Amino acid sequence: MANSKKFILPESEIPTQWYNIMAEMESKPQPMINPETREPLKAEDLYPLFSEELSRQEVNHTDVWIDIPEEVRDKYKIYRPTPLVRATELEKALDTPAHIYFKNESVSPVGSHKLNSALPQAYYNKKEGITNITTETGAGQWGTALSFAARAFGLELAVYMVKISYEQKPYRRSLMQTWGAQVIASPSMSTKAGRKILTDNPTYQGSLGTAISEAIELAMQTPNCKYTLGSVLNHVSLHQSIIGLEAEKQMEMAGEYPDVVIGCFGGGSNFSGITFPFLRHSMKGERNTRFIAAEPASCPKLTRGKFKYDFGDETGYTPLIPMFTLGHKFSPANIHAGGLRYHGAGSIVSQLLKDGFIEAESFKQLDTFEAGVLFARTEGIVPAPESNHAIAAAIKEALKAKEEGKKKVILFNLSGHGLVDMSAYDQYMAGDLTNHEVSDSDISKFLGE
Amino acid sequence: MANSKKFILPESEIPTQWYNIMAEMESKPQPMINPETREPLKAEDLYPLFSEELSRQEVNHTDVWIDIPEEVRDKYKIYRPTPLVRATELEKALDTPAHIYFKNESVSPVGSHKLNSALPQAYYNKKEGITNITTETGAGQWGTALSFAARAFGLELAVYMVKISYEQKPYRRSLMQTWGAQVIASPSMSTKAGRKILTDNPTYQGSLGTAISEAIELAMQTPNCKYTLGSVLNHVSLHQSIIGLEAEKQMEMAGEYPDVVIGCFGGGSNFSGITFPFLRHSMKGERNTRFIAAEPASCPKLTRGKFKYDFGDETGYTPLIPMFTLGHKFSPANIHAGGLRYHGAGSIVSQLLKDGFIEAESFKQLDTFEAGVLFARTEGIVPAPESNHAIAAAIKEALKAKEEGKKKVILFNLSGHGLVDMSAYDQYMAGDLTNHEVSDSDISKFLGE
Repeated sequence: MANSKKFILPESEIPTQWYNIMAEMESKPQPMINPETREPLKAEDLYPLFSEELSRQEVNHTDVWIDIPEEVRDKYKIYRPTPLVRATELEKALDTPAHIYFKNESVSPVGSHKLNSALPQAYYNKKEGITNITTETGAGQWGTALSFAARAFGLELAVYMVKISYEQKPYRRSLMQTWGAQVIASPSMSTKAGRKILTDNPTYQGSLGTAISEAIELAMQTPNCKYTLGSVLNHVSLHQSIIGLEAEKQMEMAGEYPDVVIGCFGGGSNFSGITFPFLRHSMKGERNTRFIAAEPASCPKLTRGKFKYDFGDETGYTPLIPMFTLGHKFSPANIHAGGLRYHGAGSIVSQLLKDGFIEAESFKQLDTFEAGVLFARTEGIVPAPESNHAIAAAIKEALKAKEEGKKKVILFNLSGHGLVDMSAYDQYMAGDLTNHEVSDSDISKFLGE
Repeated sequence: MANSKKFILPESEIPTQWYNIMAEMESKPQPMINPETREPLKAEDLYPLFSEELSRQEVNHTDVWIDIPEEVRDKYKIYRPTPLVRATELEKALDTPAHIYFKNESVSPVGSHKLNSALPQAYYNKKEGITNITTETGAGQWGTALSFAARAFGLELAVYMVKISYEQKPYRRSLMQTWGAQVIASPSMSTKAGRKILTDNPTYQGSLGTAISEAIELAMQTPNCKYTLGSVLNHVSLHQSIIGLEAEKQMEMAGEYPDVVIGCFGGGSNFSGITFPFLRHSMKGERNTRFIAAEPASCPKLTRGKFKYDFGDETGYTPLIPMFTLGHKFSPANIHAGGLRYHGAGSIVSQLLKDGFIEAESFKQLDTFEAGVLFARTEGIVPAPESNHAIAAAIKEALKAKEEGKKKVILFNLSGHGLVDMSAYDQYMAGDLTNHEVSDSDISKFLGE
């Protein structure tokens, strides 16, 4: 098997349980806090907004393994197990002694790993008698995934899509509509929050913060309706652990164990997914693996942000979350990796970074596209702009191995493909893309220092 | 295994040989003819245009099995074996006793089955010392596939892309450029043929016929350069047989054998690919399977065309090909299934239809999109507009089985996904798509009757 290119598990090997890293962390992530009472939030406090089961998962510090419902596992079969691939052609192009593997989450019908959490989120809502769900989407990957999941479990879905993406990424919008979701450009006239913004500033192009406010408002004011979120939260990391659990079995098929595991980093969903199942062995001292979160230089919350309590949205409607953050008013440059344009990191990842279990590294936009084009030209898959960050990190590690003349096993998560982001590649090839540096004074300003 | 959703072969089961149906046909396809000398064409006559090995494959009536070069099989590993999937969710939606399976060729990095022939075509050209190849592309699927294949084997590629597609399908163009191909909107100023057309009609939006002429002209006038074609020809059907050969093994894993095998039909490449390996058992009387070619009602060469010698291109530069045709001047309506907008059928398929081994059925554009949306909403994959024709045929057969209360095993080829064709779905959902009927007088006119 060691000479194979792809390592494919049978359907029967789709994990039956998710891995809940919180139960095994010695220093637990700190709780979310109610900004008014300053009390730590319990599961019940989240019930008005989220499905009850998802709320319980959010604060579950005790169960290491959580059963995947049979109905969810059945839907996972549509695209899981996803392949683990040895990037042999990329290795040749780099002339590196490193072995590079990637977990190919781009094969999901929605083109990214986001479906791994969209399916259980839709399922639990449906099971609890909810009929309608809402969410927001920036670049559109989460909205796309939830549209398919809502359809699969028979829920109505309203997606608030940041207006500039709504206009610039029409294919993502069409995908959501094909699966039957209602897609609303945000800010919209359908909510108080949206109306206020449009009244104050009629040409405002929208932001994730505004879209979150609109999605939350609609959920709170609609009977039988809940809100959902595709990253940052602990229950999302839980669901995404299926990526790493499969990858662990597949690395065993390949007869290797990774020295480095890499994921790109926005709010943390795909990074958590690929790393936590490997991290559990490192946390216990059984393995000595490095974990690298690859973030954009233009939104460097892990490498240049600060660990503190902050809001999850721009306007401050959410609970306070313990996170590495650039400040909830920080407005990242309009890079093409829209899924990485978020000011904060989930609380688990933030704690792990604080405790030295993981590393972070930032990459400039042009370097990530250079890496993505090399990957496309060797391995054939055009990666999502987000995933290009993980590829850039993997290539850097592979070239380091070459310099040092060392064999090294590198695993990264290919979180999605870029087939509906080709305009970004167009701009890159035309020389129209730039890097976006963040000044120290910008960072101090938004961190309120 | 019978309850699985996906049937996955290990890499070791990628076929080592293609199946050459010509060697087993009792009535062989008639030869191509030189329009000037009226002599049947031999392999050598094709050498100036095509790679020598491909020319020999084109007229090989004797070898049933042809070895797949190890270098090609290595590249096939990037995406093959492709999954065979039981469309359980679609079956539920249709409430049918039929079992519906589809071979998922959309998982190729270029999003369609076209790579199956692009890789060997690039390989043989490279092996024979060719440095440059040319081709044309309409909707862009073949051009995309050849771009990746040319890159994989280190060839320079020029693609003439029909101008209206070049403008309307920018994502396909970007994909080709990402893989390093030169993409030229046709008609162009780079060839005599293009210049003449542009001089006569400066705003002409291009046609496949014109693009073929330009690609041929460039190949003939460039040292070390050959022309390539992604459908119609016998060597293309040969390479595509890998689809059905894998599917045969996978149906065995599922413990079933298809009663009906379906492919959409343009020039014949994916239809041949999925059907020929099953057809060989029917030809020998070992099995009694139906084979349905699903073509657009707006381009009904198989159901309403005529079997005769005709040119492969609009302007009449190619040899005369024995085919079911609507006449080489027939100009199909601008439907979204651009890959099915071709006036003729390959000579093998044409002979098989004439001899009653296969059936053909035509489908209206709106019915195919209705089928495609149902498929997307159940199985999760948004199909290419071309593949929607196969899905419409499969659904029709499944509903017939329901009426008759009969179990029936249906297999169709999902030739590609529609992620870069979302504007077509947009138009369908907005109610802006129409059917395009072809009148009897139109058909008589272009057939010269």
